[in-house]
Amino acid sequence: MSATKKPVLFTALSPALLNLYDVTNSVVVIIDVLRATSTIATALHNGAKEIIPVDSVRECIRIGKQISAITAGERDGKVAEGLEHGNSPFEYPSSFIAGKTLVLTTTNGTKLLHMALNNGAQEIITGAFANLDAVCDHLLSQKKNVLLACAAWKDRVNFEDTVFAGAVIHRIGHHFDINCDASKLAEGLYEEAQSDLYEYMKNKKATHYLRLTSFGLEKDIRHCMTPNTANILPMYKQGKLIKK
Amino acid sequence: MSATKKPVLFTALSPALLNLYDVTNSVVVIIDVLRATSTIATALHNGAKEIIPVDSVRECIRIGKQISAITAGERDGKVAEGLEHGNSPFEYPSSFIAGKTLVLTTTNGTKLLHMALNNGAQEIITGAFANLDAVCDHLLSQKKNVLLACAAWKDRVNFEDTVFAGAVIHRIGHHFDINCDASKLAEGLYEEAQSDLYEYMKNKKATHYLRLTSFGLEKDIRHCMTPNTANILPMYKQGKLIKK
Repeated sequence: MSATKKPVLFTALSPALLNLYDVTNSVVVIIDVLRATSTIATALHNGAKEIIPVDSVRECIRIGKQISAITAGERDGKVAEGLEHGNSPFEYPSSFIAGKTLVLTTTNGTKLLHMALNNGAQEIITGAFANLDAVCDHLLSQKKNVLLACAAWKDRVNFEDTVFAGAVIHRIGHHFDINCDASKLAEGLYEEAQSDLYEYMKNKKATHYLRLTSFGLEKDIRHCMTPNTANILPMYKQGKLIKK
Repeated sequence: MSATKKPVLFTALSPALLNLYDVTNSVVVIIDVLRATSTIATALHNGAKEIIPVDSVRECIRIGKQISAITAGERDGKVAEGLEHGNSPFEYPSSFIAGKTLVLTTTNGTKLLHMALNNGAQEIITGAFANLDAVCDHLLSQKKNVLLACAAWKDRVNFEDTVFAGAVIHRIGHHFDINCDASKLAEGLYEEAQSDLYEYMKNKKATHYLRLTSFGLEKDIRHCMTPNTANILPMYKQGKLIKK
């Protein structure tokens, strides 16, 4: 009924659902809140020159050597063998990361980014609570179709990525035409949980809450569920994530 | 911490996520609330002898002729060409269906049932609000692992199947070990929407609400979102759904 047609917005709750959506005219937001996209925002906010996301530990080591960059990545909550650093945003203060290149390997987020790329996404950015407002501002300014793409956990729908999609929709959803129940579910979840996201995860015994707290990473969860701690926009350009 | 180990429960929000779960030791509940599994419960409750779910309209016609059964199925909200009846529970009062065999083709539900079968599910039943209590009672009595399998809409997560999964979890979830965020999301959704499921769908502009009301099917939605209108347990045995 509006005078101008709104762009559409969809949410893919798992990489296994990404192919259901046409992304060729869309901005795709890669969401991997615990902890890849939180760490990406943090490192770029703290002055990292660029971040190169790669699929495998081997590739991470190879590129790290080739360009003398910092290598980082975890498998099952520990720094992967042969890499120097982990996935925690706390490992990347400006005193350490400013001006440097980071080669980062993550299981779920990188896979999803490459899927979106192969599907012909018009633009790829990354989102987390750390840069919630920057993501929302960018999507509003672009006036393009949007796919919120949750990295999930080994294709299983997870709480933290879904609730971040919901946070975006809660803020800017009315500027889009949303004929997508997954988006409505995500928004409803956010509205239920927003008063204290960390406590909600804890009370609901969210899978990633249990997994990370078993490694003593409560502090990381609290930080990653806090809005706008690193409010910049990471954008994927020619194999690298750079600050827009 | 309990003396006896609880069985596990997972929820697959889309057929595209079914393969993530091992169903070989599980009861799989096929959920296609609007309207296949509502109609299946209703027809069996009203005395149908058995229901044969098939993938295609052609197969539906072939089997219908072969065994002189009633054929039913819709495509895009209308009775499919060559079939006699549609997917509405109102089409199957006992005066019509008692003692008869129904061959039913549905897009999403039948596909999912056959996937569960191919994955080696130990037992397959169907669930909808129409038979909510019968499903819960059965799952409690079996004390086996459970997969709540949502038929969704062309693999896209939908409101009504998710909220039904949530209704089951809300009632009996504490008897299971649930390390599954999708189940927690579904339960949260149900708890938010339970006071009036129809109004919630309407207010949220759920995709299937929009689709069915555009065909004038508000009455079907209201009926399908009402608990225990046909409180029996459909069980899949050798190609047929029968009343347990």
